[in-house]
Amino acid sequence: MLTLYFAPGSSSMAPHIALREIGAPFEPRPVSFHNLETRTPEFLALNPAGKVPVLVVDGRPITEVLAILTYLARAHPEAGLLPGDLVGQAQVLAWMSFLASTVHPVRKQGLEAARAAYQMLDDMLGGSDWAVGDHYSIADIHLFRLFWRFRGSLDVGPGDFPNLTRHYDRMMARPAVMKTIEVESAIGYQLPA
Amino acid sequence: MLTLYFAPGSSSMAPHIALREIGAPFEPRPVSFHNLETRTPEFLALNPAGKVPVLVVDGRPITEVLAILTYLARAHPEAGLLPGDLVGQAQVLAWMSFLASTVHPVRKQGLEAARAAYQMLDDMLGGSDWAVGDHYSIADIHLFRLFWRFRGSLDVGPGDFPNLTRHYDRMMARPAVMKTIEVESAIGYQLPA
Repeated sequence: MLTLYFAPGSSSMAPHIALREIGAPFEPRPVSFHNLETRTPEFLALNPAGKVPVLVVDGRPITEVLAILTYLARAHPEAGLLPGDLVGQAQVLAWMSFLASTVHPVRKQGLEAARAAYQMLDDMLGGSDWAVGDHYSIADIHLFRLFWRFRGSLDVGPGDFPNLTRHYDRMMARPAVMKTIEVESAIGYQLPA
Repeated sequence: MLTLYFAPGSSSMAPHIALREIGAPFEPRPVSFHNLETRTPEFLALNPAGKVPVLVVDGRPITEVLAILTYLARAHPEAGLLPGDLVGQAQVLAWMSFLASTVHPVRKQGLEAARAAYQMLDDMLGGSDWAVGDHYSIADIHLFRLFWRFRGSLDVGPGDFPNLTRHYDRMMARPAVMKTIEVESAIGYQLPA
Protein backbone atom coordinates (compact mmCIF):
# COMPACT_ATOMS: atom_id res chain seq x y z
CA MET A 1 0.00 0.00 0.00
CA LEU A 2 1.50 3.32 -1.17
CA THR A 3 0.36 6.81 -0.14
CA LEU A 4 1.96 9.91 -1.67
CA TYR A 5 1.69 13.20 0.17
CA PHE A 6 2.32 15.92 -2.40
CA ALA A 7 1.75 19.59 -3.19
CA PRO A 8 1.00 20.30 -6.85
CA GLY A 9 3.97 21.81 -8.68
CA SER A 10 6.38 21.36 -5.77
CA SER A 11 9.33 18.95 -5.66
CA SER A 12 6.86 16.14 -4.94
CA MET A 13 6.08 16.21 -8.66
CA ALA A 14 9.14 14.00 -9.24
CA PRO A 15 7.91 10.99 -7.22
CA HIS A 16 4.44 11.60 -8.65
CA ILE A 17 5.86 11.17 -12.16
CA ALA A 18 7.80 8.06 -11.08
CA LEU A 19 4.66 6.44 -9.67
CA ARG A 20 2.94 6.99 -13.02
CA GLU A 21 5.96 5.68 -14.96
CA ILE A 22 5.81 2.52 -12.86
CA GLY A 23 2.05 2.24 -13.01
CA ALA A 24 1.87 1.33 -9.32
CA PRO A 25 -1.48 1.99 -7.63
CA PHE A 26 -1.19 4.66 -4.93
CA GLU A 27 -3.37 6.85 -2.80
CA PRO A 28 -2.73 10.52 -3.73
CA ARG A 29 -2.88 12.89 -0.74
CA PRO A 30 -2.58 16.52 -1.81
CA VAL A 31 -1.57 18.80 1.06
CA SER A 32 -1.77 22.55 1.16
CA PHE A 33 1.14 24.74 2.23
CA HIS A 34 -1.23 27.69 2.47
CA ASN A 35 -3.38 25.88 5.01
CA LEU A 36 -0.23 24.83 6.91
CA GLU A 37 -1.14 21.19 6.40
CA THR A 38 2.58 20.28 6.48
CA ARG A 39 2.78 21.74 10.00
CA THR A 40 0.19 19.57 11.74
CA PRO A 41 1.36 17.10 14.42
CA GLU A 42 0.17 14.26 12.18
CA PHE A 43 2.25 15.43 9.24
CA LEU A 44 5.34 16.23 11.35
CA ALA A 45 5.19 12.66 12.66
CA LEU A 46 5.70 11.54 9.05
CA ASN A 47 8.36 14.16 8.28
CA PRO A 48 9.86 16.27 11.09
CA ALA A 49 11.12 18.70 8.42
CA GLY A 50 7.50 19.49 7.51
CA LYS A 51 8.03 19.02 3.79
CA VAL A 52 6.51 17.12 0.92
CA PRO A 53 6.99 14.65 -0.64
CA VAL A 54 6.39 11.82 1.79
CA LEU A 55 5.72 8.31 0.50
CA VAL A 56 4.19 5.98 3.06
CA VAL A 57 4.87 2.31 2.32
CA ASP A 58 2.79 -0.05 4.44
CA GLY A 59 2.78 2.52 7.25
CA ARG A 60 6.48 3.42 7.03
CA PRO A 61 7.30 6.95 5.81
CA ILE A 62 10.05 7.73 3.31
CA THR A 63 11.00 11.41 2.89
CA GLU A 64 13.17 13.33 0.38
CA VAL A 65 12.76 13.21 -3.39
CA LEU A 66 15.98 11.28 -3.99
CA ALA A 67 15.15 8.58 -1.44
CA ILE A 68 11.58 8.10 -2.66
CA LEU A 69 12.66 7.91 -6.30
CA THR A 70 15.33 5.36 -5.45
CA TYR A 71 12.91 3.27 -3.40
CA LEU A 72 10.33 3.21 -6.21
CA ALA A 73 12.89 2.31 -8.86
CA ARG A 74 14.37 -0.49 -6.76
CA ALA A 75 11.00 -1.88 -5.67
CA HIS A 76 9.87 -1.95 -9.33
CA PRO A 77 12.91 -3.04 -11.33
CA GLU A 78 10.65 -4.01 -14.24
CA ALA A 79 10.13 -0.28 -14.91
CA GLY A 80 13.82 0.07 -15.79
CA LEU A 81 14.30 3.38 -13.97
CA LEU A 82 17.80 2.46 -12.73
CA PRO A 83 20.81 0.79 -14.36
CA GLY A 84 21.28 -2.85 -13.47
CA ASP A 85 24.72 -2.55 -11.86
CA LEU A 86 25.74 -0.95 -8.55
CA VAL A 87 28.18 1.55 -10.04
CA GLY A 88 25.57 2.71 -12.56
CA GLN A 89 22.99 3.03 -9.79
CA ALA A 90 25.48 5.05 -7.73
CA GLN A 91 26.06 7.38 -10.69
CA VAL A 92 22.31 8.01 -10.86
CA LEU A 93 22.30 8.73 -7.10
CA ALA A 94 25.22 11.12 -7.58
CA TRP A 95 23.32 13.10 -10.23
CA MET A 96 20.32 13.37 -7.91
CA SER A 97 22.49 14.32 -4.93
CA PHE A 98 24.12 17.07 -6.99
CA LEU A 99 20.68 18.35 -8.02
CA ALA A 100 19.37 18.31 -4.44
CA SER A 101 22.42 19.63 -2.62
CA THR A 102 24.00 22.04 -5.11
CA VAL A 103 21.54 23.04 -7.85
CA HIS A 104 18.31 23.33 -5.87
CA PRO A 105 19.67 25.62 -3.10
CA VAL A 106 21.28 27.90 -5.70
CA ARG A 107 17.95 29.63 -6.32
CA LYS A 108 18.60 31.59 -3.12
CA GLN A 109 21.92 32.91 -4.46
CA GLY A 110 20.70 35.07 -7.30
CA LEU A 111 20.36 34.86 -11.08
CA GLU A 112 24.05 34.61 -11.92
CA ALA A 113 24.69 31.68 -9.58
CA ALA A 114 21.52 29.96 -10.79
CA ARG A 115 22.46 30.33 -14.45
CA ALA A 116 25.96 29.00 -13.73
CA ALA A 117 24.52 25.93 -12.00
CA TYR A 118 22.14 25.16 -14.86
CA GLN A 119 24.92 25.78 -17.37
CA MET A 120 26.95 23.12 -15.57
CA LEU A 121 23.97 20.75 -15.84
CA ASP A 122 23.68 21.58 -19.54
CA ASP A 123 27.38 20.73 -20.00
CA MET A 124 27.05 17.53 -17.93
CA LEU A 125 24.11 16.44 -20.07
CA GLY A 126 25.95 17.30 -23.28
CA GLY A 127 24.68 15.54 -26.36
CA SER A 128 23.22 12.63 -24.43
CA ASP A 129 19.52 11.97 -24.42
CA TRP A 130 19.55 11.15 -20.71
CA ALA A 131 21.46 12.19 -17.58
CA VAL A 132 23.35 8.94 -16.90
CA GLY A 133 24.48 6.64 -19.67
CA ASP A 134 22.12 5.91 -22.55
CA HIS A 135 19.02 5.15 -20.51
CA TYR A 136 16.14 7.04 -18.97
CA SER A 137 16.37 6.92 -15.16
CA ILE A 138 15.04 8.56 -12.03
CA ALA A 139 17.83 11.16 -12.42
CA ASP A 140 16.01 12.41 -15.52
CA ILE A 141 12.78 12.77 -13.59
CA HIS A 142 14.56 14.74 -10.86
CA LEU A 143 16.38 16.93 -13.41
CA PHE A 144 13.19 17.58 -15.37
CA ARG A 145 11.23 18.74 -12.35
CA LEU A 146 13.91 21.26 -11.36
CA PHE A 147 14.20 22.74 -14.84
CA TRP A 148 10.40 22.72 -15.26
CA ARG A 149 10.06 24.70 -12.04
CA PHE A 150 12.94 27.15 -12.30
CA ARG A 151 13.50 27.73 -16.01
CA GLY A 152 11.12 30.71 -15.83
CA SER A 153 13.47 32.46 -13.41
CA LEU A 154 16.67 31.75 -15.38
CA ASP A 155 16.17 34.49 -17.99
CA VAL A 156 16.51 31.93 -20.78
CA GLY A 157 17.40 33.53 -24.10
CA PRO A 158 17.28 31.92 -27.56
CA GLY A 159 19.87 29.15 -27.74
CA ASP A 160 20.51 29.09 -23.98
CA PHE A 161 20.70 25.72 -22.25
CA PRO A 162 20.20 23.76 -25.50
CA ASN A 163 20.79 20.35 -23.93
CA LEU A 164 18.46 20.98 -20.98
CA THR A 165 15.84 22.29 -23.40
CA ARG A 166 16.01 19.14 -25.57
CA HIS A 167 15.78 17.06 -22.38
CA TYR A 168 12.77 19.09 -21.24
CA ASP A 169 10.99 18.57 -24.56
CA ARG A 170 11.74 14.85 -24.47
CA MET A 171 10.32 14.59 -20.95
CA MET A 172 7.21 16.63 -21.76
CA ALA A 173 6.33 14.05 -24.42
CA ARG A 174 6.18 11.19 -21.90
CA PRO A 175 2.66 10.05 -20.96
CA ALA A 176 3.59 9.80 -17.25
CA VAL A 177 4.73 13.44 -17.27
CA MET A 178 1.67 14.64 -19.17
CA LYS A 179 -0.65 12.81 -16.80
CA THR A 180 1.11 14.17 -13.70
CA ILE A 181 0.90 17.73 -15.00
CA GLU A 182 -2.76 17.22 -15.88
CA VAL A 183 -3.59 15.94 -12.40
CA GLU A 184 -1.52 18.49 -10.47
CA SER A 185 -2.58 21.53 -12.48
CA ALA A 186 -6.23 20.51 -12.05
CA ILE A 187 -5.77 20.65 -8.26
CA GLY A 188 -3.90 23.93 -8.67
CA TYR A 189 -0.16 24.56 -8.44
CA GLN A 190 1.03 25.98 -5.16
CA LEU A 191 4.67 26.60 -4.61
CA PRO A 192 6.46 27.08 -1.31
CA ALA A 193 8.32 30.30 -0.71
CA MET B 1 40.16 -1.69 -7.70
CA LEU B 2 39.09 1.34 -5.62
CA THR B 3 40.71 4.79 -5.64
CA LEU B 4 39.52 7.52 -3.28
CA TYR B 5 40.26 11.15 -4.13
CA PHE B 6 39.96 13.09 -0.90
CA ALA B 7 41.00 16.29 0.87
CA PRO B 8 41.77 15.81 4.58
CA GLY B 9 39.01 17.14 6.83
CA SER B 10 36.61 17.84 3.96
CA SER B 11 33.37 16.00 3.23
CA SER B 12 35.44 13.20 1.69
CA MET B 13 36.16 12.12 5.27
CA ALA B 14 32.81 10.26 5.26
CA PRO B 15 33.65 7.80 2.46
CA HIS B 16 37.14 7.50 3.92
CA ILE B 17 35.63 6.31 7.21
CA ALA B 18 33.30 3.92 5.35
CA LEU B 19 36.21 2.35 3.47
CA ARG B 20 37.92 1.70 6.80
CA GLU B 21 34.72 0.31 8.36
CA ILE B 22 34.47 -2.11 5.47
CA GLY B 23 38.15 -2.92 5.47
CA ALA B 24 38.30 -2.77 1.67
CA PRO B 25 41.73 -2.13 0.17
CA PHE B 26 41.88 1.19 -1.67
CA GLU B 27 44.37 3.60 -3.15
CA PRO B 28 44.20 6.90 -1.23
CA ARG B 29 44.73 9.96 -3.44
CA PRO B 30 44.90 13.14 -1.38
CA VAL B 31 44.26 16.26 -3.48
CA SER B 32 44.99 19.84 -2.52
CA PHE B 33 42.42 22.61 -2.89
CA HIS B 34 45.17 25.14 -2.34
CA ASN B 35 47.10 23.85 -5.34
CA LEU B 36 43.86 23.81 -7.37
CA GLU B 37 44.26 20.08 -7.94
CA THR B 38 40.46 19.75 -8.19
CA ARG B 39 40.52 22.15 -11.15
CA THR B 40 42.84 20.23 -13.49
CA PRO B 41 41.40 18.81 -16.72
CA GLU B 42 42.15 15.30 -15.39
CA PHE B 43 40.18 15.88 -12.20
CA LEU B 44 37.29 17.65 -13.94
CA ALA B 45 36.95 14.59 -16.20
CA LEU B 46 36.24 12.60 -13.03
CA ASN B 47 33.95 15.22 -11.50
CA PRO B 48 32.80 18.22 -13.57
CA ALA B 49 31.82 19.94 -10.32
CA GLY B 50 35.50 19.95 -9.28
CA LYS B 51 34.83 18.54 -5.83
CA VAL B 52 36.04 15.72 -3.66
CA PRO B 53 35.19 13.01 -2.85
CA VAL B 54 35.44 10.91 -5.97
CA LEU B 55 35.61 7.13 -5.74
CA VAL B 56 36.86 5.42 -8.87
CA VAL B 57 35.68 1.82 -9.17
CA ASP B 58 37.45 -0.11 -11.91
CA GLY B 59 37.87 3.10 -13.87
CA ARG B 60 34.31 4.41 -13.35
CA PRO B 61 33.97 7.54 -11.17
CA ILE B 62 31.31 7.95 -8.50
CA THR B 63 30.86 11.46 -7.05
CA GLU B 64 28.90 12.87 -4.07
CA VAL B 65 29.23 11.64 -0.49
CA LEU B 66 25.78 10.09 -0.40
CA ALA B 67 26.28 8.12 -3.61
CA ILE B 68 29.73 6.83 -2.65
CA LEU B 69 28.57 5.77 0.81
CA THR B 70 25.59 3.96 -0.67
CA TYR B 71 27.74 2.22 -3.26
CA LEU B 72 30.24 1.02 -0.65
CA ALA B 73 27.52 -0.23 1.71
CA ARG B 74 25.70 -2.10 -1.06
CA ALA B 75 28.88 -3.58 -2.55
CA HIS B 76 29.92 -4.83 0.91
CA PRO B 77 26.72 -6.00 2.59
CA GLU B 78 28.77 -8.05 5.06
CA ALA B 79 29.78 -4.77 6.75
CA GLY B 80 26.15 -4.17 7.76
CA LEU B 81 26.17 -0.45 6.93
CA LEU B 82 22.60 -0.51 5.56
CA PRO B 83 19.35 -2.14 6.73
CA GLY B 84 18.40 -5.29 4.88
CA ASP B 85 15.07 -4.08 3.46
CA LEU B 86 14.35 -1.51 0.75
CA VAL B 87 12.25 0.80 2.94
CA GLY B 88 14.94 0.85 5.63
CA GLN B 89 17.59 1.57 3.01
CA ALA B 90 15.44 4.39 1.64
CA GLN B 91 15.13 5.87 5.14
CA VAL B 92 18.93 5.90 5.41
CA LEU B 93 19.10 7.64 2.01
CA ALA B 94 16.52 10.17 3.20
CA TRP B 95 18.64 11.05 6.26
CA MET B 96 21.68 11.56 4.04
CA SER B 97 19.71 13.59 1.49
CA PHE B 98 18.42 15.84 4.27
CA LEU B 99 21.99 16.31 5.54
CA ALA B 100 23.34 17.09 2.07
CA SER B 101 20.53 19.28 0.76
CA THR B 102 19.25 21.08 3.86
CA VAL B 103 21.77 20.92 6.71
CA HIS B 104 25.03 21.32 4.82
CA PRO B 105 24.05 24.46 2.82
CA VAL B 106 22.72 26.11 6.01
CA ARG B 107 26.23 27.14 7.02
CA LYS B 108 25.92 29.96 4.51
CA GLN B 109 22.78 31.31 6.22
CA GLY B 110 24.25 32.41 9.54
CA LEU B 111 24.46 31.10 13.10
CA GLU B 112 20.76 31.13 13.92
CA ALA B 113 19.77 29.09 10.86
CA ALA B 114 22.65 26.68 11.47
CA ARG B 115 21.73 26.14 15.12
CA ALA B 116 18.08 25.55 14.13
CA ALA B 117 19.12 22.92 11.58
CA TYR B 118 21.33 21.06 14.06
CA GLN B 119 18.60 21.32 16.69
CA MET B 120 16.28 19.56 14.26
CA LEU B 121 18.91 16.83 13.80
CA ASP B 122 19.23 16.54 17.58
CA ASP B 123 15.46 16.11 17.84
CA MET B 124 15.38 13.61 14.97
CA LEU B 125 18.10 11.57 16.66
CA GLY B 126 16.34 11.75 20.03
CA GLY B 127 17.30 9.04 22.47
CA SER B 128 18.39 6.61 19.76
CA ASP B 129 21.97 5.49 19.48
CA TRP B 130 21.90 5.73 15.69
CA ALA B 131 20.20 7.86 13.03
CA VAL B 132 17.91 5.23 11.49
CA GLY B 133 16.43 2.43 13.55
CA ASP B 134 18.62 0.62 16.05
CA HIS B 135 21.61 0.04 13.83
CA TYR B 136 24.74 1.85 12.80
CA SER B 137 24.58 2.84 9.12
CA ILE B 138 26.18 5.11 6.56
CA ALA B 139 23.74 7.84 7.71
CA ASP B 140 25.67 7.90 11.01
CA ILE B 141 28.96 8.37 9.19
CA HIS B 142 27.52 11.25 7.14
CA LEU B 143 25.96 12.85 10.25
CA PHE B 144 29.18 12.50 12.25
CA ARG B 145 31.33 14.16 9.62
CA LEU B 146 29.03 17.20 9.44
CA PHE B 147 28.87 17.68 13.21
CA TRP B 148 32.63 17.02 13.52
CA ARG B 149 33.29 19.77 10.99
CA PHE B 150 30.77 22.42 11.98
CA ARG B 151 30.21 22.01 15.72
CA GLY B 152 32.97 24.57 16.33
CA SER B 153 30.94 27.23 14.54
CA LEU B 154 27.63 26.45 16.29
CA ASP B 155 28.42 28.26 19.55
CA VAL B 156 27.69 25.09 21.51
CA GLY B 157 26.97 25.80 25.19
CA PRO B 158 26.80 23.26 28.05
CA GLY B 159 23.85 20.94 27.50
CA ASP B 160 23.30 22.03 23.89
CA PHE B 161 22.70 19.32 21.27
CA PRO B 162 22.85 16.49 23.84
CA ASN B 163 21.86 13.77 21.39
CA LEU B 164 24.30 14.87 18.71
CA THR B 165 27.03 15.07 21.33
CA ARG B 166 26.39 11.51 22.52
CA HIS B 167 26.39 10.38 18.89
CA TYR B 168 29.67 12.22 18.29
CA ASP B 169 31.31 10.56 21.30
CA ARG B 170 30.07 7.15 20.18
CA MET B 171 31.50 7.70 16.70
CA MET B 172 34.84 9.00 17.99
CA ALA B 173 35.31 5.69 19.81
CA ARG B 174 35.12 3.64 16.58
CA PRO B 175 38.47 2.34 15.31
CA ALA B 176 37.59 3.26 11.70
CA VAL B 177 36.96 6.87 12.74
CA MET B 178 40.10 7.08 14.85
CA LYS B 179 42.20 5.68 12.01
CA THR B 180 40.70 8.08 9.45
CA ILE B 181 41.38 11.08 11.69
CA GLU B 182 44.91 9.86 12.34
CA VAL B 183 45.62 9.50 8.61
CA GLU B 184 43.95 12.73 7.50
CA SER B 185 45.38 14.91 10.27
CA ALA B 186 48.86 13.58 9.50
CA ILE B 187 48.49 14.83 5.91
CA GLY B 188 47.07 18.10 7.25
CA TYR B 189 43.47 19.26 7.26
CA GLN B 190 42.55 21.67 4.52
CA LEU B 191 39.04 22.94 4.25
CA PRO B 192 37.37 24.53 1.27
CA ALA B 193 35.95 28.00 1.64
